[in-house]
Amino acid sequence: MSAISLSGKELAASLRARAKEAADALTAAGTPPRLAVVVATDDGSSLWYVRSIAKAAAKSGIVCDVVDLGADATVAEIRRALETLSADDTVHGVILQTPLPEGASAADLAGTIDPAKDVDGANPASLGRLAARLPAFAPATAEAVVALLDHHEVPLPGRHVVVVGRSTVVGVPAAHLLLARDATVSVCHSRTADLPGMTRRADVLVVAAGRAGLVTAGHVAPGTVVVDVGTNPAGDGGLVGDVAPEVSEVAGALTPVPGGVGPVTTALLLGHTVAAAAHLTQR
Amino acid sequence: MSAISLSGKELAASLRARAKEAADALTAAGTPPRLAVVVATDDGSSLWYVRSIAKAAAKSGIVCDVVDLGADATVAEIRRALETLSADDTVHGVILQTPLPEGASAADLAGTIDPAKDVDGANPASLGRLAARLPAFAPATAEAVVALLDHHEVPLPGRHVVVVGRSTVVGVPAAHLLLARDATVSVCHSRTADLPGMTRRADVLVVAAGRAGLVTAGHVAPGTVVVDVGTNPAGDGGLVGDVAPEVSEVAGALTPVPGGVGPVTTALLLGHTVAAAAHLTQR
Repeated sequence: MSAISLSGKELAASLRARAKEAADALTAAGTPPRLAVVVATDDGSSLWYVRSIAKAAAKSGIVCDVVDLGADATVAEIRRALETLSADDTVHGVILQTPLPEGASAADLAGTIDPAKDVDGANPASLGRLAARLPAFAPATAEAVVALLDHHEVPLPGRHVVVVGRSTVVGVPAAHLLLARDATVSVCHSRTADLPGMTRRADVLVVAAGRAGLVTAGHVAPGTVVVDVGTNPAGDGGLVGDVAPEVSEVAGALTPVPGGVGPVTTALLLGHTVAAAAHLTQR
Repeated sequence: MSAISLSGKELAASLRARAKEAADALTAAGTPPRLAVVVATDDGSSLWYVRSIAKAAAKSGIVCDVVDLGADATVAEIRRALETLSADDTVHGVILQTPLPEGASAADLAGTIDPAKDVDGANPASLGRLAARLPAFAPATAEAVVALLDHHEVPLPGRHVVVVGRSTVVGVPAAHLLLARDATVSVCHSRTADLPGMTRRADVLVVAAGRAGLVTAGHVAPGTVVVDVGTNPAGDGGLVGDVAPEVSEVAGALTPVPGGVGPVTTALLLGHTVAAAAHLTQR
């Protein structure tokens, strides 16, 4: 039997439509919402992702500036760019794209982003507010995981969610959002002694390890809901997830890659940007 | 067979001795380290804890001011006190004691504490930096859990640590510190569907639920290392933990209450205060 496909396309479309409506109203009122993406890499899949954000923003009536500092940008140059954009009243959302040049810490640099414009929840202050359950922008990918589960009416309270991956951008904030939704949350990672033993105990399995095909059929108990956050470059120029295709024979439901978490993430970034613009123009 | 007792007294004594040495050096150099504890409660066990901090500080050569605003203090009064202390150059550590009057959010108010003086890691910005593995003061109780395990040479990398309790002051930051030490971490709470089923799978069980006797022998697999963070008022005026006494018949090792996590927590607070004083006088 094949798992139910938990597509993100329908949810993403409705989120984008809602963002467009809000963006058009802001533009009509004289404040076109503007998103800035700071890039300091020549990594192909990262640049592909930035282009997809820029295209989606344009379609939703959001101006998107890609500030490309080049792969040889210094930490000081990146910091200065983030400071300038944080201080610029015409900019409402600021994203620092990874990877960064060697020696640059994304979390440290993102501490420079004004929390009111931190639409991808990258500033550690945003992460702390999220952990303390205070209002903050969540990292869009982490929020997309929960939004997609909600959209497909997967219950969370009291259920055991196993997150594979402990990154500051996905695994850890997803764990916070899932705890806030009353799930019991386990976080596994590369040092976990018995990964299949942990993941087989999940009601819901969230895989955000960044390793193609890491999770195989042997990791998944029959009927498990599996969310694949991975976006790894495939040989054919496309994307593959962290979950091997064979898992669909065992899982109860599975998010596709592409077309699952990805489009929801982009749509949430746009939503955060118009929310930031609305908030910033009011203050 | 009875569990090995993982006392915190020896570790606390050595941490206090180290703090006293640093405090005396600072005082000799003209900067007596000073800790301020803001209190807005008449809760007995909270006031008992504040007195124990003040006494321990005095013994370690640290000045401790208890700023008692009374149980009817307003949010604005508490905020003003924290702002004043954050701006006061003679104060190096600021703690906001809980519980707070109804309507006051500890996490929100603690956002007012200068992170450089946030010796109990209560500011959400400190929690976020901890989660992002940037330098920050950790909440002393959470740090005490890991310090006590280290002191008793309980290995953490790759092992499954189950944390019961998801508070911003203990459960969540303990989970971050344990993840940073390469443990696989599960967080359970009042909404967990099958608590004994989760806790029986732990190599190390950390209980920080704030409910006397919550964890019984049926929750613990033979040989488990159990850390009891609970400090609940007992009928006789003493303290009891979250772990029932019978657990010592099953566990491999168990921290006593009192005399386990508690004294290490206080000693770490003093250590943070002298570290903050040393750092603040250098800048």
